Amino acid sequence: MKSYTEYLWFNTPNEREIVNITSKVEDIVKKSRVKEGFCLVSAMHITAGIWVNDEESGLKQDVMEWLEKLAPVADYKHHRTGETNGDAHLKRTLVHHQVVLPITNGELDLGPWEQVFYMEFDGRRRKRVIVKIIGE
Amino acid sequence: MKSYTEYLWFNTPNEREIVNITSKVEDIVKKSRVKEGFCLVSAMHITAGIWVNDEESGLKQDVMEWLEKLAPVADYKHHRTGETNGDAHLKRTLVHHQVVLPITNGELDLGPWEQVFYMEFDGRRRKRVIVKIIGE
Amino acid sequence: MKSYTEYLWFNTPNEREIVNITSKVEDIVKKSRVKEGFCLVSAMHITAGIWVNDEESGLKQDVMEWLEKLAPVADYKHHRTGETNGDAHLKRTLVHHQVVLPITNGELDLGPWEQVFYMEFDGRRRKRVIVKIIGE
Repeated sequence: MKSYTEYLWFNTPNEREIVNITSKVEDIVKKSRVKEGFCLVSAMHITAGIWVNDEESGLKQDVMEWLEKLAPVADYKHHRTGETNGDAHLKRTLVHHQVVLPITNGELDLGPWEQVFYMEFDGRRRKRVIVKIIGE
Repeated sequence: MKSYTEYLWFNTPNEREIVNITSKVEDIVKKSRVKEGFCLVSAMHITAGIWVNDEESGLKQDVMEWLEKLAPVADYKHHRTGETNGDAHLKRTLVHHQVVLPITNGELDLGPWEQVFYMEFDGRRRKRVIVKIIGE
Repeated sequence: MKSYTEYLWFNTPNEREIVNITSKVEDIVKKSRVKEGFCLVSAMHITAGIWVNDEESGLKQDVMEWLEKLAPVADYKHHRTGETNGDAHLKRTLVHHQVVLPITNGELDLGPWEQVFYMEFDGRRRKRVIVKIIGE
């Protein structure tokens, strides 16, 4: 069994952003030389998530507006700690913070429109995503 | 390490459907001859998801009605592309589009009521699910 | 490839609880002797989930109140079976019921504030979580 690990760093200029990381993950898969296996992509900071969906600008606006509706900026108990990002913790929970991508024949085995996105809900800070591959 | 990959195809007669795929996944696990490992089940089309829950007809109606409440059919920005399925992208996000099932002693190691479902939110099209197993 | 499996049992005194299981999972990782791999933590009962977020009491109250808002106690069709826990099935769906944790250098490779929680939505019953590790 082979394994390979890299970390992607983000420091988005905006508080909320959707960043397409598909080609970065593909590059890491190639470097791993794994032909058949799994690639875990997981946001290591608790106010960010990973989303697999369509690269379409309208949809990306839709999903952010929808997340704001379901997990709005509000006065959360978490804010008694001095933080102001309670909504970002809940948004991460909704989209989920990780994905396991299949690797087949040395490449990400994604559907025709599947793209991998880093979703930042509390940006302007340095944050990490782990990309860890196991396989053969 | 062994790996084994199959694709399940769906073309549901209805726009929305919940299809129990547990026995199909079990068959693939047997064919893989993996005794200890992980089985990834992931919907490759971005308007479908995978759900692990109870095979109970009332609950299956409940979850679809609940998803409609949280991610309703509406006039999304995504529809400026000509699509009409914005809600289906959001419903997939809510239920999540994949699951990793443990394999122990050559069988799916599920809880007493855990069943695996394909959730279609934009049917009447040919769509795929990847079932990929790694282990030994 | 190595694999290692343990089951954690829960029987929470309250109907709803958030139990930090990070150190229990770390102990299992050590016992597995896996240095590089994946650790699946998955709730085997369909009214419980796994959540990776912050060990902060205000936030833990926030997330439970928010889940109650999005997936409230109500009169579900599922209750025609005699059950009364329809909301718990939906809450599990929202937080998702599993996580794959990366193992690097023999330890859980978590972000600075990432902690692993068992989320019980229908307690006072004996329930299991599978912790399954594969790697080398």
